[in-house]
Parts: sequence; structure tokens; C-alpha cells
Amino acid sequence: MTTRKYKLTLAYDGTCYEGWQARKDGRGIRATLARALESLCGIAPEIIASSRTDAGVHARGLVLHLEVPASFSFTGESLRQALNAKLPDAIRVMSARIAPARFHARFDVLEKEYRYQVWNHPVMDPLLRHQAWHVPRPLELASMKEAAAHFIGRHDFRHFTVMRKGELLDSHRTLTQCRVIKQGKRLTIQLTGEGFLYKMCRRIVGTLVQVGEGKLTPSEVHALLHSPAPHPGGFVAPAHGLMLWRVGY
Amino acid sequence: MTTRKYKLTLAYDGTCYEGWQARKDGRGIRATLARALESLCGIAPEIIASSRTDAGVHARGLVLHLEVPASFSFTGESLRQALNAKLPDAIRVMSARIAPARFHARFDVLEKEYRYQVWNHPVMDPLLRHQAWHVPRPLELASMKEAAAHFIGRHDFRHFTVMRKGELLDSHRTLTQCRVIKQGKRLTIQLTGEGFLYKMCRRIVGTLVQVGEGKLTPSEVHALLHSPAPHPGGFVAPAHGLMLWRVGY
Repeated sequence: MTTRKYKLTLAYDGTCYEGWQARKDGRGIRATLARALESLCGIAPEIIASSRTDAGVHARGLVLHLEVPASFSFTGESLRQALNAKLPDAIRVMSARIAPARFHARFDVLEKEYRYQVWNHPVMDPLLRHQAWHVPRPLELASMKEAAAHFIGRHDFRHFTVMRKGELLDSHRTLTQCRVIKQGKRLTIQLTGEGFLYKMCRRIVGTLVQVGEGKLTPSEVHALLHSPAPHPGGFVAPAHGLMLWRVGY
Repeated sequence: MTTRKYKLTLAYDGTCYEGWQARKDGRGIRATLARALESLCGIAPEIIASSRTDAGVHARGLVLHLEVPASFSFTGESLRQALNAKLPDAIRVMSARIAPARFHARFDVLEKEYRYQVWNHPVMDPLLRHQAWHVPRPLELASMKEAAAHFIGRHDFRHFTVMRKGELLDSHRTLTQCRVIKQGKRLTIQLTGEGFLYKMCRRIVGTLVQVGEGKLTPSEVHALLHSPAPHPGGFVAPAHGLMLWRVGY
């Protein structure tokens, strides 16, 4: 059976799903997309995604590839429209196009950008409650920016991940961007890198917020990045403030 | 019984409510706030609001006043905290303070600002689906801006409201701001004025989108504002893109 490969960019509201890959089937974003494909093509093709977001995490630009029997003759445009007609409105195919046979959505990633939103005011904005972390105490922006700069570059991020049992991996990663931007009561933390460890974004954000609250100093963050000694590590920020913004190839 | 007057600023996600004043009791924002007050004070004080938003419309800064028995000795801060503990998280008291006895949340309004969001792309952004109107066809920004400028000033807005049966009122209103701002695929229409007719914001936005789609010209909008002849008027934009942004006193 000849197939045609497609590159899809997906956006979703993670509020209603148990992440990309749900433990129990049915409530995952991948499984929801697989069902839409199955009802469209009669088979559920394998879906290879750039990233697996945790429960509650959102996406504006997750990229994936899949192969569909060539006999369906989908153009990118017609596949996008057909899938969006089947998907719930919390998940949208933002774009779809025919990809070269050699394209791989996970192995070919050059960089990923995540954005994390913090609402810094005594009262949560109800319109952001599913898309921003509510931090009621005032945050000191200057020290957060100073600490953020320490993360840029190639570092051992072992204190900024959650190691899964028995896992032995190289915890060196390179961040090309770690910016804290303030717009009124909203802080956005932009993180760009070639790759991220498990929960790395949320642990960096949790650490930056501890710095903003005066519980850690920027130089303690610097030390954490250069210390081989075991350390409990920083706080993990909640999932619902995080968004996979963009994946570059 | 001596009472103390409070000025409250309310934000809410209108998605889950049937507007400020629901026809059937229970699902309105006013009724939900009244229940929280009743469980706090034993009585439900009268709530006077700056505005009555329709079902689906959101607010970042609706202002209201109410009187609570002085015996409770609430400060603004303690009333805010006590109410937020009782309210669902889709409704928040952003600020509360003791107001002078002469303050009136409706009669003392000097100006109101509404903001309307349009998502202009073939595919809806799932994260904005409850807070922006999806307009898939490309919009011509320059002509929308030209048409928007015609609305500024004092005009007879009779073609930009929905007259309720038997209603006879002066349909002249003054708009001090009518701006169309583009940020990527998102358009924001900012409307400021001393007062608005029923559905006036949504009818102005509906008309501006018709201009952006090439179905009306800016000069036809100008003519509509200066024509005394009956006219079906422009399209009414859907409620969920509208937000009451700010009320000035």
C-alpha cells in the first residue's frame, strides 16, 4: 500500500485532556486525533509527534507526521479540513501539508519554544484561570531576569528535571532563550532550546518564581546549574500555565 | 440599620453564565454574587451595576455598588477576600473599597470601554474559542480603520442598536474611541464612550467586519450614521468576543 506523508501543526486547549499520551486511553490528545483519522480513513495511522505534553499543558504549534494511504489523494488543505470537521473544537489542525518521505517530526527538530504565563496579582483573572499560574505575592522582576540569564547556554540541567525511576541519561541541554517579559500583571517566560528534559520548563519557571519571591537568589540558581551534588531542585510550576508555542525544523 | 457602601470591580468569564441578569434565576452573574453575599451576611443586599452584560459577554472591569450592614465592619480588602472565597472561580472580585454614600455605580459613570476580539484565520485558535469571534475570510484592515473613524463623535446610532418592542428613546450617543488594532491573526476593536445602546458594540463590530469582508464600504457606513431612513442595519457580532474592559467615574 503506497502512502503519503503529511506534516501537521496542531493547537489545543489542554484543559479537557490528560495530556498528549493519556495513561488510560480515550482522554489523550493523540487518541482523540487517532479516532478522527480512523473515522476518516478506516485505519488509524501511527502518529509521530515532536513532543508529548503533560496533562493540562496547551499547544499552539505541536508538529507531527503521519502517513495516509495515497488512494485518499488528500491535499494538505483537504486533510486539514476533513480532520477539523471530525475533531472537538478544543483541538484544531492549524495547518497540514504533504511532507517529503524523509521528514521526521521528532528526529528533525532543530528547536522548540515554550511559553509560560504567570498572573501576578492578589486576585486571579478568571479569563486566564486555565492558561496562567496564579502567583499572588509580588514578584521582583529584576532578579528573575538576572536568574533567567544564567539558564542560557549549555548546562547540566539535572536539578531542573524530574528523573524517572532507573533513568540514566545525559542531562546536558542547550537553551538559546530564557526571557521574562512583563505586561501589566501578566508575566510571560519564553524558553527556547534544541530539546528539553522531562518537566524542565516547569521546573525552570518554578525556580524563577522562587527567585521573584525572594526565596532563592540569582547566584544560588547559578550555583545549582554548576553543582554536581544532589539537590532537591526547584519547585515545579503547575502544568496549566505552559504552552508549546512553536517547533522549528 | 446603618449600612456601609462598597464599590466593587468584578471580572468574569461569561461562558458559563446567562449574562448579568439571567431571565431564569440562578444562572446569572448577579444572582451568583447575590447568593455569595447572602451566605456571607444573611441578607442579599441590592446590587447596582454599571452595566448589564448579555449572555456570553465577559468582563474585566464591571463596577457595582452595594450596601452591607455596618455591623459586619468589612474593610474593602476583607470583603473582597470573603466574597472570593464564596464565589466560583469564573467570577472574581478584583477590588473592593468603601465608597462615599453618594456614589452610584450606574448614574456616576463617565465612560465605558469595551474590547472585542476577532480571530482572523481559516482555523480557529482553540485557546481563544470562548473569547474571540472566528472570522475565517481575510479582512481588509485599512477599510475597517477608515470605517471605524466614522463612528467617533456624537451620532444617531439608531441603525446600530436592536430596538426593543415599543421602545422610544433618544438614540444619540457619543463615542470617543473606535480603534481597530491588529496583532498577528487577532484583531481587537476598542470602543469607548459615555454610554452605549442595547447591542451597540456588537452591531458596530458586525458592521466593521462586513466592511473588512468588502460587503460594505466605509462611505456606506458614514451614510448609515447620517440617514434618518429605516434600514435593516449591520450584522450583530456574537456575544463571546465582547468584554467590558473598564468603567470610568
